[in-house]
Amino acid sequence: MRAVDVLRTKRDGRELSAADIDAFVRGATDGSWPDYQIAAMLMAIYLKGMAEAETSQLTRAMAHSGSLLDWSDVPGPKIDKHSTGGVGDKTTIVLVPLAAACGLVVPKMSGRSLGHSGGTVDKLEAIPGFRVDLSLEEFRATVREIGCAIVGQNAQMALADKKIYALRDVTATVESIPLITASILSKKIPEGIEGLVLDVKCGRGAFMKTQRDAQTLARLLVRVGTDNGLKTQAVVTSMEAPLGRAVGNALEIKECLDVLRGEGPADVALLAILLTARMLLLGGLADSPSDAETRVRAALTSGQGLEKLRRMIERQGGDPHVVDDPARLPQATERVTLKAARAGFVSKIDAEIVGHASMLLGAGRSRKEDRMDPAVGVVVKARVGEQVRKGDALAEIHMNDRTHEHKALAMLANAWEIGTEWPTEAPLVLAVLDS
Amino acid sequence: MRAVDVLRTKRDGRELSAADIDAFVRGATDGSWPDYQIAAMLMAIYLKGMAEAETSQLTRAMAHSGSLLDWSDVPGPKIDKHSTGGVGDKTTIVLVPLAAACGLVVPKMSGRSLGHSGGTVDKLEAIPGFRVDLSLEEFRATVREIGCAIVGQNAQMALADKKIYALRDVTATVESIPLITASILSKKIPEGIEGLVLDVKCGRGAFMKTQRDAQTLARLLVRVGTDNGLKTQAVVTSMEAPLGRAVGNALEIKECLDVLRGEGPADVALLAILLTARMLLLGGLADSPSDAETRVRAALTSGQGLEKLRRMIERQGGDPHVVDDPARLPQATERVTLKAARAGFVSKIDAEIVGHASMLLGAGRSRKEDRMDPAVGVVVKARVGEQVRKGDALAEIHMNDRTHEHKALAMLANAWEIGTEWPTEAPLVLAVLDS
Repeated sequence: MRAVDVLRTKRDGRELSAADIDAFVRGATDGSWPDYQIAAMLMAIYLKGMAEAETSQLTRAMAHSGSLLDWSDVPGPKIDKHSTGGVGDKTTIVLVPLAAACGLVVPKMSGRSLGHSGGTVDKLEAIPGFRVDLSLEEFRATVREIGCAIVGQNAQMALADKKIYALRDVTATVESIPLITASILSKKIPEGIEGLVLDVKCGRGAFMKTQRDAQTLARLLVRVGTDNGLKTQAVVTSMEAPLGRAVGNALEIKECLDVLRGEGPADVALLAILLTARMLLLGGLADSPSDAETRVRAALTSGQGLEKLRRMIERQGGDPHVVDDPARLPQATERVTLKAARAGFVSKIDAEIVGHASMLLGAGRSRKEDRMDPAVGVVVKARVGEQVRKGDALAEIHMNDRTHEHKALAMLANAWEIGTEWPTEAPLVLAVLDS
Repeated sequence: MRAVDVLRTKRDGRELSAADIDAFVRGATDGSWPDYQIAAMLMAIYLKGMAEAETSQLTRAMAHSGSLLDWSDVPGPKIDKHSTGGVGDKTTIVLVPLAAACGLVVPKMSGRSLGHSGGTVDKLEAIPGFRVDLSLEEFRATVREIGCAIVGQNAQMALADKKIYALRDVTATVESIPLITASILSKKIPEGIEGLVLDVKCGRGAFMKTQRDAQTLARLLVRVGTDNGLKTQAVVTSMEAPLGRAVGNALEIKECLDVLRGEGPADVALLAILLTARMLLLGGLADSPSDAETRVRAALTSGQGLEKLRRMIERQGGDPHVVDDPARLPQATERVTLKAARAGFVSKIDAEIVGHASMLLGAGRSRKEDRMDPAVGVVVKARVGEQVRKGDALAEIHMNDRTHEHKALAMLANAWEIGTEWPTEAPLVLAVLDS
């Protein structure tokens, strides 16, 4: 199987055989395909697409390009959740302990994605001492003991994805639905889980800007996951405005604690409950959607979810006292308020702009090398649908130096739209895709 | 200008600006674009195409990516010819001395292309002692003294093409008309010539298989050449059957000597005369096509062309006695004849198969590292239109060992088609494109 022949097949828009795809993935894994051939292949896939069967085989080959976890010694259904990411999306940190409190086993590995704010593991690292780099043995022990753990991606798993992901970033081939699908699932399958609930974000603050693209991705994820032996479901959710109020690593951890205490923003709680309920159903721990939701709500209101998180933090080296005293989280020294220029109803908050403003303050990274400041970020004070008077706070900026204060304020001023009428409420959940 | 932004522009099918193209070519030349970004760009260009203005700018940038020759100290019009290559195409070796004999200055640099038989410089190296690696000073002195020289491509010229050409070969992006155009012209413009006649081959034994593709390439070459300040013309010629009778390096040199003596196959002579006449017109050394042709024929029949070749061989270190005594060329020890299986008229000879058989015998190379045997090859004994009896010779194989004898014979047997009727004669020249 010569690389150039495989390239020619995809270039000409013909379907790749399983052997072609295996050769590509093996080549990316063992280095026998040089980077320039992988790059040419990625551009050809981007432009010519992939049939579902090709995407499924690509996913399978990539998933098996590194080591696989085996949880047969741990009782209970192993179910995970993955979100395609959005501004203020901290759902995982609420959901994982809730799911574990309900009896699921959640061996979660999570990324450090580039973007507006950190990935889940970056957020957790805002907790003093929290380690996301557990050894496989520590990870297994934590999961076995408390039912969940959240760590960074393992260096020995899905090796082909590491090579391909890095090349996509520098060859303008990121936005390819088959490549996105294979990348996401190839990192989830080796976790050794039985089921996966996907949250595909859609809108201004998400990678998928249109509902059509988000649905296409969600559908393909469900089919390819299922074809690879994973019980897979997807939910398409709105990401026009930031999720919750907090954008920024420590600020989001605090919000997660609020939600698990029953106090946080309703949208974060609602989404976490919905997704956790789907995980319970996939894991066979509930008979019906309403049964599942009842169980999740019970775990939340009883404080069992919060307890699980406390134990997870402790087990992963973090300071468990942050759970009761969020002031122990890193806090920014400077705060400044964005004020409403006129009275009216908040009709829109552009999540993308809020994300960019947070990144400017140091809450996210635009390049791998960028250092983040866990304390900084933006807190939304007036959410969509809320009435404001002139001079009311729309947002609060948290920062440790004032270098970017004026630019961030100017950006944020553009993110808020204030109308004269009460806006119609937009749904959070746009679609549900069962396998 | 970030590489990834330029990539995104072409990926999305938008037209690249001159600055985009310059960034790409500079990146390929100075290494600031890694190979994987160049490869992704080549695949995007292959699949999304390039407008004429983009191709022209690409050509310009590539042509200027290395050093340029200046012949202002040498009197006479500097005109070159380039062929896209075909089986048995030895026209250059007839045409360059003829053109010089007519008063043109031909500073020809030629490639070693991969393929059925060697490139022009490989053929010339079949002459004992002939050096194609003249220093620039030796090259200039030869051209100044006798009006022509044929050398290999210079390592300091068209640097971007060297990088891009090598990557195209391994990324399945060779067959792109804009990339072919830029590659050809970017190597011709730095020669410092004023005019260029292109022979675009079309058919089974050529790179362009259809007349439509060949015409498209020819038209683009003429337009882009002209746009880059080069008087450019193109001729599309048939390459269904081998050109002439000889395929193989020394065998072709012998045939060129025959043609320059007025004895060789009519098609080689005809094409060489036609192309040289066009060169004379471009160089302003003839008033009309018929005047130009008269002059070229005179240079041929007077033996001036042969004399020029003798002087060129001598000046480039080769044995000038081969001109009168072709037996001094390398000769194969073994010969075997392919015989007609039945009587009839030769209706077709598949040039591509003849080319592959020659390559199998060692007359060409499929990889850069392959060594060629200058003595081996195939001589066509029964050409298209000729009548044969059963058992008559169709071809003669020249080889130095019999390893591939049976395979080559079997291949060649498939190349000849023998019909019951006299075939209609196919034209050699399919189209002429003036600037």
